[in-house]
Amino acid sequence: MKHLLRLADLPITEINRILDCAQAAKTGIYDDSETKRIVANLFFEPSTRTQYSFNTAELKLGCKVINFNAASSSLQKGETFYDTVKTFESFGIDAVVIRDRKDRYYLDLIDRIHIPILNGGDGKMDHPTQSLLDLLTIREEFNHFDGLKIAIVGDIAHSRVAHTNIEVMQRLGMQCYISGPEEYQDAQYDSIDFDQAVETMDVIMLLRVQHERHDQAMSISVEHYHQQYGLTMERVAKMKPHAIILHPAPFNRGVEIADDVVECEKSRIFKQINNGVYVRMAVLKRAWESD
Amino acid sequence: MKHLLRLADLPITEINRILDCAQAAKTGIYDDSETKRIVANLFFEPSTRTQYSFNTAELKLGCKVINFNAASSSLQKGETFYDTVKTFESFGIDAVVIRDRKDRYYLDLIDRIHIPILNGGDGKMDHPTQSLLDLLTIREEFNHFDGLKIAIVGDIAHSRVAHTNIEVMQRLGMQCYISGPEEYQDAQYDSIDFDQAVETMDVIMLLRVQHERHDQAMSISVEHYHQQYGLTMERVAKMKPHAIILHPAPFNRGVEIADDVVECEKSRIFKQINNGVYVRMAVLKRAWESD
Amino acid sequence: MKHLLRLADLPITEINRILDCAQAAKTGIYDDSETKRIVANLFFEPSTRTQYSFNTAELKLGCKVINFNAASSSLQKGETFYDTVKTFESFGIDAVVIRDRKDRYYLDLIDRIHIPILNGGDGKMDHPTQSLLDLLTIREEFNHFDGLKIAIVGDIAHSRVAHTNIEVMQRLGMQCYISGPEEYQDAQYDSIDFDQAVETMDVIMLLRVQHERHDQAMSISVEHYHQQYGLTMERVAKMKPHAIILHPAPFNRGVEIADDVVECEKSRIFKQINNGVYVRMAVLKRAWESD
Repeated sequence: MKHLLRLADLPITEINRILDCAQAAKTGIYDDSETKRIVANLFFEPSTRTQYSFNTAELKLGCKVINFNAASSSLQKGETFYDTVKTFESFGIDAVVIRDRKDRYYLDLIDRIHIPILNGGDGKMDHPTQSLLDLLTIREEFNHFDGLKIAIVGDIAHSRVAHTNIEVMQRLGMQCYISGPEEYQDAQYDSIDFDQAVETMDVIMLLRVQHERHDQAMSISVEHYHQQYGLTMERVAKMKPHAIILHPAPFNRGVEIADDVVECEKSRIFKQINNGVYVRMAVLKRAWESD
Repeated sequence: MKHLLRLADLPITEINRILDCAQAAKTGIYDDSETKRIVANLFFEPSTRTQYSFNTAELKLGCKVINFNAASSSLQKGETFYDTVKTFESFGIDAVVIRDRKDRYYLDLIDRIHIPILNGGDGKMDHPTQSLLDLLTIREEFNHFDGLKIAIVGDIAHSRVAHTNIEVMQRLGMQCYISGPEEYQDAQYDSIDFDQAVETMDVIMLLRVQHERHDQAMSISVEHYHQQYGLTMERVAKMKPHAIILHPAPFNRGVEIADDVVECEKSRIFKQINNGVYVRMAVLKRAWESD
Repeated sequence: MKHLLRLADLPITEINRILDCAQAAKTGIYDDSETKRIVANLFFEPSTRTQYSFNTAELKLGCKVINFNAASSSLQKGETFYDTVKTFESFGIDAVVIRDRKDRYYLDLIDRIHIPILNGGDGKMDHPTQSLLDLLTIREEFNHFDGLKIAIVGDIAHSRVAHTNIEVMQRLGMQCYISGPEEYQDAQYDSIDFDQAVETMDVIMLLRVQHERHDQAMSISVEHYHQQYGLTMERVAKMKPHAIILHPAPFNRGVEIADDVVECEKSRIFKQINNGVYVRMAVLKRAWESD
């Protein structure tokens, strides 16, 4: 049994093994015979992509799926998070996928829950399957990681995607920069001017402004944001010929990304979403490997 | 691949072919081996009948099903309708069933989404599977359409069921009338006095007053509505011997239909609901036919 | 076809037969070939345990499952409870599991719905599968019922679990007592002082204070409740050596049960949850037996 909690715990060889397995699944080499397995998706925060992407991955593997609707559950009767997860374990479920608002929610669980936990996002900390699908998309494009330059642009401070990605990408030999409004930056990372990033990076990864995680309103207007940090076709034209655009989505058209950039030639945004299913198939299969 | 967007796009031969396929499914002649297919039900408006009827149809065909819960999704983070649907396409889903508040929501999708879209209702415009199940119920009863007289009674102006039905029923040779409170009528259709309709029609189709689509309150009281336009057992007694009662449901007992009429001998209301599953099996199978 | 509405309708032989079947399922002797069956879970009250336990049981039997989301359904358009259930019957569903706020909701249904109804809890009246899982847990522990002493502690007046359990346990030869704050007791049952119960009972069953069923606030504070009626490790130490602790859950840690008691050696709380799945598999199989 193998949890997937954060990529920082996994050696590079293990990350590459997961990517290989996802790539194989993408070419159709996978086993849909996990028909005895039941997986529960426990999402305590709203999600479209991650929840339904896991759901699709589970169905493609042949698993049975329980989608837990937190809004109409006993959490309303004061049940704790741990007790809810322990309940699903007690049902005889074979794995749980969990997203929660709390950073490292899994620290309360790992010693006391004896089925695999797949982290679908914890607070502002980690989002391992998102990083894995970003890595798969980059590897498909460039066939290597070493020496590639990436700028992650936008609300770095509130982004579990940024933190998870920079840690693993640096280990893989990539040069990582951050950019965007000063108020959302993080002093521990190298910063780069956005327009300079556009012209020099191999990968531009845009982030959504996560209004729902902010205590106060953004100090600059949406129009100002778009003008200063929005990826427009004008800016796309200045990107290096082979460079690509990533975005973990959901994206706000007209804010961090112009409408016509979403599906432009350099965008890999919907390819990322497609890759996400294969990455999740890989980590589910891995969950049931013996230690 | 074949969308199902509105019946007005389908020739009579195609409509009959769908009804034949539904009839065959009803007699047990159907294939439940679509076990590799995943269908996503994307309902952006509340629904019991249509959503769970599609769900049942999908399961009976052997498909795997993802029910998208719009209330806890990334729509809350500002994601657009198109981007949500594109996301499900990118997952590798095999078909989407969509209901949305917006008239012709599919116009934004058809050139850009490359999986079958089955329309589960768009705004005040169309509800093709509802019409198909009405047609199947009428055909089972009378074995033909030509020359049959139908009155659709109630809130015509806000009803996608009325619009879709009148268009296709007229093409099938039926004589269609509308009736009910003047404020809800539509000048493009032939109107008939309700009590006259009761005595002369082959089919009385009742509609629910759709308070949720109205900008202002109904000018007549519920009691008055029931007295003037409600189908009571007294009125049922005046119907032609072979005539039948339809209602797309949900119905409001004591408003447009008296309590004891719902399951009276002339009512086909729950038979319609049953037929809905077979009709939806037929349009799902059709969705995956080659063009 | 067999409904499961309340245990008071079932003879002891039938209850034992269900427990035997659940026990066999627990040891792995069960049939997962109900792949043609569709079961709908219609929960009109929030639930974690019962709904997802039934869901797991259905999946383990191979059934297909429809989870009805009451919050986004046509109930919002004024549809009646009966009409909602009749709609699922009309879809061709093979059984419905229902929880509703109304006592004996099924009285409106039993003569008019012709598919098995499995009661997942009705108002303050009954919760048959909860009692069955309590019985299975007790029987596994003691290998008999006759002469065992149980105290049910807490909010007896609002508890369908208490009512259902006392009726059936008395028939099985158990001696049943109630305990807890006076305002929540029920004069028809034998009452016992809580600390005396702790020292003399074979089974201590704790109940949650069901704030959501109360018209007014509890007259004693949470701290006072915990001090007077909370099961603490200090009290656990005074229990008879073989005695066990049950709780239907969800539980409120620090109110009726101390944090460290939940998973202490005498607690069978998570075992109950596990047994619930097997009991529900048994009642589902029974639902499709001929009368």
